Amino acid sequence: MVFKVTVTRAWRATRTLWLPMLVSLSVCVCVCRASSPQEDSAMENIVTEKKAEESHRQDSADLLIFIMLLTLTILTIWLFKHRRFRFLHETGLAMIYGLLVGVVLRYGIHVPRDMGNVTLSCHVNASPATLLVNISGKYYEYTLKGEIGANEVNDVQDNEMLRKVTFDPEVFFNILLPPIIFHAGYSLKRRHFFRNMGSILAYAFLGTVISCFVIGLLMYGCVTLMKQLKQLDGDFFFTDCLFFGAIVSATDPVTVLAIFNELQVDVDLYALLFGESVLNDAVAVILSSSIVAYQPQGDNSHTFEVMAMLKSFGVFLGVFSGSFALGVATGVFTALVTKFTKLRDFQLLETALFFLMSWSTFLLAEACGFTGVVAVLFCGITQAHYTFNNLSPESQDRTKQLFELLNFLAENFIFSYMGLTLFTFQNHIFNPMFIVGAFLAVFVGRAANIYPLSFLLNLGRRNKIRSNFQHMMMFAGLRGAMTFALSIRDTATYARQMMFTTTLLVVFFTVWICGGGTTQMLSCQRIRVGVDSDQDNSISITDGSERRSTKHESAWLFRIWYNFDHNYLKPILTHSGPPLTATLPPCCGPLARFLTSPQAYENECQLKDDDSDLILTDGDMNLTYGDMTVSTDATGAHMSGGAAFAGAATCDDLDRELTYGDHELVMRGTRLVLPMDDSEPPFTDPYQRLRM
Amino acid sequence: MVFKVTVTRAWRATRTLWLPMLVSLSVCVCVCRASSPQEDSAMENIVTEKKAEESHRQDSADLLIFIMLLTLTILTIWLFKHRRFRFLHETGLAMIYGLLVGVVLRYGIHVPRDMGNVTLSCHVNASPATLLVNISGKYYEYTLKGEIGANEVNDVQDNEMLRKVTFDPEVFFNILLPPIIFHAGYSLKRRHFFRNMGSILAYAFLGTVISCFVIGLLMYGCVTLMKQLKQLDGDFFFTDCLFFGAIVSATDPVTVLAIFNELQVDVDLYALLFGESVLNDAVAVILSSSIVAYQPQGDNSHTFEVMAMLKSFGVFLGVFSGSFALGVATGVFTALVTKFTKLRDFQLLETALFFLMSWSTFLLAEACGFTGVVAVLFCGITQAHYTFNNLSPESQDRTKQLFELLNFLAENFIFSYMGLTLFTFQNHIFNPMFIVGAFLAVFVGRAANIYPLSFLLNLGRRNKIRSNFQHMMMFAGLRGAMTFALSIRDTATYARQMMFTTTLLVVFFTVWICGGGTTQMLSCQRIRVGVDSDQDNSISITDGSERRSTKHESAWLFRIWYNFDHNYLKPILTHSGPPLTATLPPCCGPLARFLTSPQAYENECQLKDDDSDLILTDGDMNLTYGDMTVSTDATGAHMSGGAAFAGAATCDDLDRELTYGDHELVMRGTRLVLPMDDSEPPFTDPYQRLRM
Repeated sequence: MVFKVTVTRAWRATRTLWLPMLVSLSVCVCVCRASSPQEDSAMENIVTEKKAEESHRQDSADLLIFIMLLTLTILTIWLFKHRRFRFLHETGLAMIYGLLVGVVLRYGIHVPRDMGNVTLSCHVNASPATLLVNISGKYYEYTLKGEIGANEVNDVQDNEMLRKVTFDPEVFFNILLPPIIFHAGYSLKRRHFFRNMGSILAYAFLGTVISCFVIGLLMYGCVTLMKQLKQLDGDFFFTDCLFFGAIVSATDPVTVLAIFNELQVDVDLYALLFGESVLNDAVAVILSSSIVAYQPQGDNSHTFEVMAMLKSFGVFLGVFSGSFALGVATGVFTALVTKFTKLRDFQLLETALFFLMSWSTFLLAEACGFTGVVAVLFCGITQAHYTFNNLSPESQDRTKQLFELLNFLAENFIFSYMGLTLFTFQNHIFNPMFIVGAFLAVFVGRAANIYPLSFLLNLGRRNKIRSNFQHMMMFAGLRGAMTFALSIRDTATYARQMMFTTTLLVVFFTVWICGGGTTQMLSCQRIRVGVDSDQDNSISITDGSERRSTKHESAWLFRIWYNFDHNYLKPILTHSGPPLTATLPPCCGPLARFLTSPQAYENECQLKDDDSDLILTDGDMNLTYGDMTVSTDATGAHMSGGAAFAGAATCDDLDRELTYGDHELVMRGTRLVLPMDDSEPPFTDPYQRLRM
Repeated sequence: MVFKVTVTRAWRATRTLWLPMLVSLSVCVCVCRASSPQEDSAMENIVTEKKAEESHRQDSADLLIFIMLLTLTILTIWLFKHRRFRFLHETGLAMIYGLLVGVVLRYGIHVPRDMGNVTLSCHVNASPATLLVNISGKYYEYTLKGEIGANEVNDVQDNEMLRKVTFDPEVFFNILLPPIIFHAGYSLKRRHFFRNMGSILAYAFLGTVISCFVIGLLMYGCVTLMKQLKQLDGDFFFTDCLFFGAIVSATDPVTVLAIFNELQVDVDLYALLFGESVLNDAVAVILSSSIVAYQPQGDNSHTFEVMAMLKSFGVFLGVFSGSFALGVATGVFTALVTKFTKLRDFQLLETALFFLMSWSTFLLAEACGFTGVVAVLFCGITQAHYTFNNLSPESQDRTKQLFELLNFLAENFIFSYMGLTLFTFQNHIFNPMFIVGAFLAVFVGRAANIYPLSFLLNLGRRNKIRSNFQHMMMFAGLRGAMTFALSIRDTATYARQMMFTTTLLVVFFTVWICGGGTTQMLSCQRIRVGVDSDQDNSISITDGSERRSTKHESAWLFRIWYNFDHNYLKPILTHSGPPLTATLPPCCGPLARFLTSPQAYENECQLKDDDSDLILTDGDMNLTYGDMTVSTDATGAHMSGGAAFAGAATCDDLDRELTYGDHELVMRGTRLVLPMDDSEPPFTDPYQRLRM
């Protein structure tokens, strides 16, 4: 009942907006199309130039459709937020608008058949990347766009217009995904992420692999059944099934996390979901490319072969570690450059350098044959952890805002394109049986990921992942941009086309139904909302035992790494942390002095003050000392003044530092509507948090 | 002597940076190239896919070269700024790095001849945009890239690698120029711009046309002479000469204005130069396209024909007014949307909308057959004048910083590409006689623009443009991004290729010599530096007579427009200005109440306060009353409280408002090094202003 009312209200609100804009949109499209032939007749002699110009105008008009769509989406999002309508997220909205425009383009606009395409029959063995065609004495250069199935040749000539609004699939992978993924890495809430690091890694790596294989096996069963029932019109191999499993295993955090942010859901649940969905994108990308790389040597290329499988596994490890290393390396390089130059005096240069270095990670990885998207993710995390601290406050704002904007635009673009594709894509294969099977498999695959892993993790965790959290994680496994980009990348074969269609439907369903039902599910599962991440922190500070339990369960894995990071990496790469002269052995004295920035010594004094401030809190003091006894790996150097932080970088330090790290990330301008304090989680789209 | 010392210092500074990076750059390029063949042999069966992948990797590597170049430029700029080296601007530097990389690519890296290109001879009459090639049973889709001269067919096959780093020329026009031009419009210093509006328009419109025709005629003489001396190997028509005149008439403000900003040169000179170079870009673009549109009906397409010429003139007027109208229209639309929605509560949405609307201006203009770059310029000015006032402070910062960054990146990219092109472009035609003639013509053309127009303008101006200002304007006529983009757009014919080569040299010469000599020229011409734009203002406030003269000389043209803008446009489009209920006739009451925002009434009270504040200054009070007697077009409505601003929106108001408008634009983060006050000119790259 409530739902119905809100829908009506939202509809009324939307109707006022979209009708005039949609009309103007179609008019604009028609005008652009109508004006072409008249111009063409005017100067028939400059055919090539005119054609290029016309094609350019057409491209502009097509791009304009998307810009208008995005504009429309933005205005509607505003209306929804303004009227506190929460059942449809902006991504779902973008898809709906995309669908509508797709319908208009498909059925509404009739374009005269373009006779300009010519089919040449040539006696060439290979398909060269560049083709020089000698047409009545003049040479024209053509570039290869791709192979086309024999049955689509007529389609190509028929639906010139629909094909025009179809982007090169690589655009998604090379232009739109990188900012989204980088933003995810750059905005990772490090504090809660590290607290749940073990579980997140388990869900993301083990879970995605499990999900991939479960879905793959189920789909293979489904496909085999379909073959028996003669429901299949083409080949569908086991590798195809696995590939499908890999691409639909990438979950998308956008919709659910936006609502989580708005409602301030439990931070641990948030961290688990966000961390999992960020990392499993990377796993899914590399998993799918490893599956593609599975090529047995024999004649039948779809038999099982141990060597080929090992090779695939090697590809997985190699590409993952390579991408990881590249991403971290450019992040570290940027950190060093920003630390050792006084670039921070010139914010524009600093921001530009940061942007270029982050982008070059992607290009470098792609050029070396690794996966750019994965490299960019780890680059983002490294930049947030190290480089961010070296930037001037202005550049910190600028970089955050820049990537936030790029993320917003890219995401909404992808989702509205998804909607459009349902009607404009030429080679959809709707196979009801496959679709039903896929939905079932996706559901089972998600369950096989979450429940068994949660059970195993709970054996080790003190702060158990409760069953309502597990249900919520199960429910929140939306599929989004990454799944779409992976599935549209290659739609050459029958199997891939069927996969693409099915994937699109899975995305639609999960974004609309699961995304829209998040609020209901939260209240149904009795998950507490309105939890301030800092309030949570203050609770644990007063309740020492609870806090320690949260810490211990995560820290066992990362204490060693954290100590190393805090004592060596942070001082080398940033201005913070203890001076290296205190942490490195005395023999490295000159090097330590060279690498330590003057600020580190100042920090030393400041940290002392900070410590004494914190000691005023009774519970905290207890903890500090309690932890100091735990940490036995103190180097003992610089003991007089810096003992509390130089050697004894314990999980308490970790917790505090991550908290402060987050504090630094707090965005300006988020306190317009909501009465929130400074300690909000960092860098989440500010408008998503506003409750009105 | 001083020059030499500084050069050595800069060289030493640079050497430490660029050598390792250049080495790593070449290594990276080689690695990427070397890794390709090995992979190819692994799976020979997936030829097309592999090829596409390889081509993608190649593209990534090529783009990486440019990213590295930009990174290198940024680091060197920082070093130069850090060491206060001022003889080479960043754009000049970017060109030098581009040149170096061009040399390396051309002579340093040997790429084995790619045999992949195949020449097909076909019996087709037209060159279709899409080509379907049937290669041994499979269909491949090819897209038209352009025509290639018969003599270049072998080159194409030879220099695959050099061609790879060559971008599609349309990239400059459609991707890199728009942000630069938008930024120029958005950052126009409105106050000084409006004060010198008449002169700026004269220089930009009349001056550019004069310059175009003078250069065209001189070049025609030169070409005729070359024909006599048999120095010409191809056709070169009068329209080509005029086209050349049009493209080299577009001056680039970047280098000179950066130095002006740093040295705080006289604001009127700054306004004249900046305004001229921003607007003459627009004039040059449309002039060149009108010249291309000159197509006599007869057989000989290069005779003079009145009808064709009139048509060209019509094209000029039509395209210009169309682009202008479109740019202003989207600006106004954005202003209305931001005024009447509460979008300002959600800064991300606001910024995204602003960005999308500004971009859609470009696309809309291109789709309608107008010139996107010109539309974007006027959109930028409109956005700055109206929409900017409706944005939330955060979005004001965000949009400024975003376009500043885009401008910076695009500009440096274009200039480094220019350097690269000198060695990597395939069809250079270095004709010494043409080049010498062009330099002479460019010089004479600039002189014919500046001196006669200044003489005529001085007849009408009270605040004369002194001869040293004229010399400086003559000297500051650098050619840059626009000239390059226009000349590389079409290099199909012999004439165009020779033009392109010559244009490149003109750009190099003017950026390095004129740009580098700006400081010397300023001191040589005894032009006062260190003028704070606000100090200048305060002088005129205390010295009433001087101020009035400055005003009157500019205001005669725009008093009417200004009154209209202040009384009707500003209140309709923004929250500022007097309420419409006061300015519109009483019959429009309901409409006026609907359009007036509540803030306008608050402003009303505030304005009164402002007025009374200002009246405390003695000189100002005199002026206020003096102006009020001048303005006789007061509507008389709302006389009791709002007389001073409702009707009597005089040039004093204009001056004050523009001043305050500028104040709003002041950037944060510019006060790190220089002791400057708040009243700095708005939104010029902050680091350019820092003196250290």
